[in-house]
Amino acid sequence: MSMIKKISHVAVVVSDIDAALEFWRDALGLKLSYAEDLPEQDAEVAFLQLGDSEIELFRPTVDDNGAARFLAENKSGMHHIALEVDDLDAMIERLQSEGVHLINHESVAAARGRRAVFVHPSSASSVLVELYEAAGK
Amino acid sequence: MSMIKKISHVAVVVSDIDAALEFWRDALGLKLSYAEDLPEQDAEVAFLQLGDSEIELFRPTVDDNGAARFLAENKSGMHHIALEVDDLDAMIERLQSEGVHLINHESVAAARGRRAVFVHPSSASSVLVELYEAAGK
Repeated sequence: MSMIKKISHVAVVVSDIDAALEFWRDALGLKLSYAEDLPEQDAEVAFLQLGDSEIELFRPTVDDNGAARFLAENKSGMHHIALEVDDLDAMIERLQSEGVHLINHESVAAARGRRAVFVHPSSASSVLVELYEAAGK
Repeated sequence: MSMIKKISHVAVVVSDIDAALEFWRDALGLKLSYAEDLPEQDAEVAFLQLGDSEIELFRPTVDDNGAARFLAENKSGMHHIALEVDDLDAMIERLQSEGVHLINHESVAAARGRRAVFVHPSSASSVLVELYEAAGK
């Protein structure tokens, strides 16, 4: 049976990665795992290690994607939670059989070359939940 | 030096714990760690295990606390992220010296008899961050 293994990351949409790092890295003392431009997602990201999970700082580089609209509405803030799943295809099948509303029924390419699906907030206590394939799949 | 150890939990404010469990426990398959009434916090809570972290479902039982106002504005959703800290007093001192805006400068009683302080969202990418004392302190 497909299992959720852990929180992969909590994604925070920000307008300025360097300003956000002043809190998450410099004040809290979290270690920056990596930072990169993701032109295919129209974004710049930075990941900070948090035990077995991470905080993702996500800055949209265009003004017409979902994160940019979130930023326009909220300034910044928690955007989604990503949960690592050992068998993504089995989990998709299971959630569909439970009547859970998925945003994408086919998995999409996500960070680090892995696949993901998103659960619609209407099925998840108004939380945007990313189900993120475990490494090595 | 005080260190952040892990994500303790991500708190989701909901209007109906049983309805929320239909997704988090029954559809996703997360294990319910415990559920209880917290009359001193005017709330009912349920925690679900997520690797080394947890999801907290938090239902306010009054209509005039912070969570109830959040619920009135947002229906439900991610409310805060709690990070486990090994030395809470040292972390408070460090954040104050870094000019981080804390909501409470003295720690307050939190879940499981531990102490916590909250970082104001204005200092943390608009995220409400709880710094939660590690077990055994």
